[in-house]
Amino acid sequence: MSNEKVRVFDTTLRDGEQSPGVTVTPDQKVQIAIKLDELGVDAIEAGFPIVSAGEMRAIKEIANKGLKAEVCGLARATVADIDAAIKCDLKYVHTFIATSDIHMQYKLKMTPDQVLQRAVRAVEHAKKHGLAVEFSAEDATRSDRAFLLKVFRAVTEAGADRIDIPDTVGYRTPDYMAQIVTEVREATKLPVSVHCHNDFGLAVANAIAGVNAGAACAHVTINGLGERAGNASLEEFVMALGILYNKRHNINTQMIYETSRFVSNTMGIIVQPNKAIIGENAFGHESGIHTHGVINNPLTYEPIAPELVGRKRWLMAGKHAGAHGIRAMLGEFGINPTEDQLHLIVEKQKEIADRGKSISTSELLSIAGEVMHNPQFEEKFKLYDFQIFTGMHTIPTAVIRLSAEGKELIASETGVGPVDAALKAIQKIAGDVASVKIREYRLGSISGGSDAQAEVSVKVEDRNGNVVSAKKANQDIVVASVEAMMDAINKVLLKRVLDSKG
Amino acid sequence: MSNEKVRVFDTTLRDGEQSPGVTVTPDQKVQIAIKLDELGVDAIEAGFPIVSAGEMRAIKEIANKGLKAEVCGLARATVADIDAAIKCDLKYVHTFIATSDIHMQYKLKMTPDQVLQRAVRAVEHAKKHGLAVEFSAEDATRSDRAFLLKVFRAVTEAGADRIDIPDTVGYRTPDYMAQIVTEVREATKLPVSVHCHNDFGLAVANAIAGVNAGAACAHVTINGLGERAGNASLEEFVMALGILYNKRHNINTQMIYETSRFVSNTMGIIVQPNKAIIGENAFGHESGIHTHGVINNPLTYEPIAPELVGRKRWLMAGKHAGAHGIRAMLGEFGINPTEDQLHLIVEKQKEIADRGKSISTSELLSIAGEVMHNPQFEEKFKLYDFQIFTGMHTIPTAVIRLSAEGKELIASETGVGPVDAALKAIQKIAGDVASVKIREYRLGSISGGSDAQAEVSVKVEDRNGNVVSAKKANQDIVVASVEAMMDAINKVLLKRVLDSKG
Repeated sequence: MSNEKVRVFDTTLRDGEQSPGVTVTPDQKVQIAIKLDELGVDAIEAGFPIVSAGEMRAIKEIANKGLKAEVCGLARATVADIDAAIKCDLKYVHTFIATSDIHMQYKLKMTPDQVLQRAVRAVEHAKKHGLAVEFSAEDATRSDRAFLLKVFRAVTEAGADRIDIPDTVGYRTPDYMAQIVTEVREATKLPVSVHCHNDFGLAVANAIAGVNAGAACAHVTINGLGERAGNASLEEFVMALGILYNKRHNINTQMIYETSRFVSNTMGIIVQPNKAIIGENAFGHESGIHTHGVINNPLTYEPIAPELVGRKRWLMAGKHAGAHGIRAMLGEFGINPTEDQLHLIVEKQKEIADRGKSISTSELLSIAGEVMHNPQFEEKFKLYDFQIFTGMHTIPTAVIRLSAEGKELIASETGVGPVDAALKAIQKIAGDVASVKIREYRLGSISGGSDAQAEVSVKVEDRNGNVVSAKKANQDIVVASVEAMMDAINKVLLKRVLDSKG
Repeated sequence: MSNEKVRVFDTTLRDGEQSPGVTVTPDQKVQIAIKLDELGVDAIEAGFPIVSAGEMRAIKEIANKGLKAEVCGLARATVADIDAAIKCDLKYVHTFIATSDIHMQYKLKMTPDQVLQRAVRAVEHAKKHGLAVEFSAEDATRSDRAFLLKVFRAVTEAGADRIDIPDTVGYRTPDYMAQIVTEVREATKLPVSVHCHNDFGLAVANAIAGVNAGAACAHVTINGLGERAGNASLEEFVMALGILYNKRHNINTQMIYETSRFVSNTMGIIVQPNKAIIGENAFGHESGIHTHGVINNPLTYEPIAPELVGRKRWLMAGKHAGAHGIRAMLGEFGINPTEDQLHLIVEKQKEIADRGKSISTSELLSIAGEVMHNPQFEEKFKLYDFQIFTGMHTIPTAVIRLSAEGKELIASETGVGPVDAALKAIQKIAGDVASVKIREYRLGSISGGSDAQAEVSVKVEDRNGNVVSAKKANQDIVVASVEAMMDAINKVLLKRVLDSKG
């Protein structure tokens, strides 16, 4: 098998944007397209022009942005849809019509002959206007194979440049994908793409099977977004391809995490912690055996270095943490307990964990301070009090009272909501007194009831560029946010004190 | 190949609980074990006894619960770990030691001979105490094959009952898993399990490849929880196995969704919307083409009926919604616009969507009411005002003023936080006036800054058992929550009015 670069066709802005719940503005679409281009994708499906006026504006702007990636748009196999793509200044169209019995009968209400004719006419129309054409037979993997190949051959003769095989409802297995790719390549001799959905969790495996059988390209999305359970995720596909299958591609893998965060924030669809490559936990370790292993040699429990995808490893002190992990976490702050002290610290930490609570680093430090009789590890900032005023015709306002190294300080601030106001008030004091700035705020999703636990993590940076994060859980979102912020500030200050001694 | 039932070994309570950030109380572990047993898993790995006193209490309780599933516990290949399992009244232990060069050299600091001896002694010790033994060679897939087989043969002779092949860092491909399973089966003749991690998104495909090559069992977790990117997810593995590969298993698939929600809520790890089978979007449709297809025949865009996994399909009016979807959504409320009216409604709805906003059902109904000149679709409850008082030494309190069918009503309530207080105040009025109760509250995760958009969805139920949900986004969490609650109440009331006419 040749080792040509695998083509990465990104459809985050089309299939991904069709995810229920995602709506982005035309400006946001353009920003995402620029990010995708920087990431190194070979083709960007920028949208579905016929959908709306805003969609056309965004696609046209992306088409004229001078990106390195080829920009394409989706069009049903109709003159109107293809003309809409032309109006967006696109030079490349992805046109489709369904070829499965179920789609032809229940959705299109057309005979196979009518479908075949319409496919050919659409390709001819697009070619007449000088477009490059990628043709998809929607629901190809549930289509009658003889009819599917007939359609593919007909559009090939009509001038199509590429053939795409969508597994529209994510129904097929790797073996099936390999087999259909082989047959379609033989029938058309054109470059073949696969477009795999993830309804059974097999999208990435299916896309890889397609490529290994000779497909030149896979359609993928950032964070595996897309209709229903989404498409093959770019991150997993590209990393598996490069690392496990030794195939070449144009993706700058170090930009993967940044791109994933940008798309998640912009499109408003979260990435779960246990998502491969890009999930928060993908390079996080809590259990004692794993932290111990990773401290001795990261490759014991990591298949790749996190830096390869633009990330960092992190350790955490939970119930399974164990002495090695705790020693390493304390070591980061230059704290070296004796074996006996370490034993006591671990015991106290497990007691807390057994009550179902996770333990923050500054709590761990304060346990260490207690066990080691060292007041230096005490918290520098102490919260005395805060008050929130908010409502419908009220500007959300927070008043905070805290002590900073002995001095009592009060600040009030307004914000877009109560959490924003409270964090701004704390940040005001912390910025003035200790040169600490908030860098990121995250709130884990809540489900169940309005009295369920909220988990907040806050990342802060001090004037020396130290970045530290802290996590807190509480039934009150504002309290969790304020406590996480206080914890982060105390950690970064402690780090500064200890660094200056080291 | 025979069609024996594939054994499902669930390790949600062990590998899943080792997910960074998860800590559950002993009581919660017992509750999850009961759920898993109801779901029909064949074996439950209840935990890692040596870890803590609380862990031992929980495992012992699960072991004595009289569950149908076999209950097992994890133990390193040491006498102390196995004795801890025995103290928990376990009859089945899963013992392991690493066999890869990197683990032996950097983590265990042992020679291969020492590892082999320790493995054999552990199995002998467990068998002497009458335990069933499943033996894992940790990092088997990166181990020297000859040494791995030597260890597996030795523990087989020592009396092991089952052999497990862990792909500890999720580094392998389906072809590799098939090949190693074949070799291990030949070498040991024992029933073989595979334990696949998801670092490249291939865990489910790898587990299936193992089973197809003759593995009797796969280790899986609910929601794919587990170290780093997690393990093969039970939901995907079981559904792919049953539907795509026609294999038999003991899982009651209709309990899958309920179990997934329970574990997510209890362990506090969210499931992303685009997760196969169990994600919120897995059976949700927004784009026009898809809603149109699904309305005509669900199988056009769904590989399986959602009811098969205990779920329901839902449609949504976004930018791609299209006339067919909008007509269907209005039809649910018995509203039948003319073609011209429908055209106008769709246009207005797309204008809103182009501004990046998703549109709620009651907004859609109010657009329909406007276009069709029908005041009946107007909102019954109108929010006039609300005020929140909260802080550190304050009991969170909300005051709400709204009109219910013309009358002005005021209520105040306290809660565990500002959102809880506000929703309780609204619920008080709604419960008194309209017999509407809140059933579920969800807040999507926020990332970026404390001024990022929060997305809230609320589910309410009226006295006739109608359940309706609504979603709202706002930078202010309290405002988003109050608006979602108001929207849900209005929708359920409208439904009641229209139902009573139908």
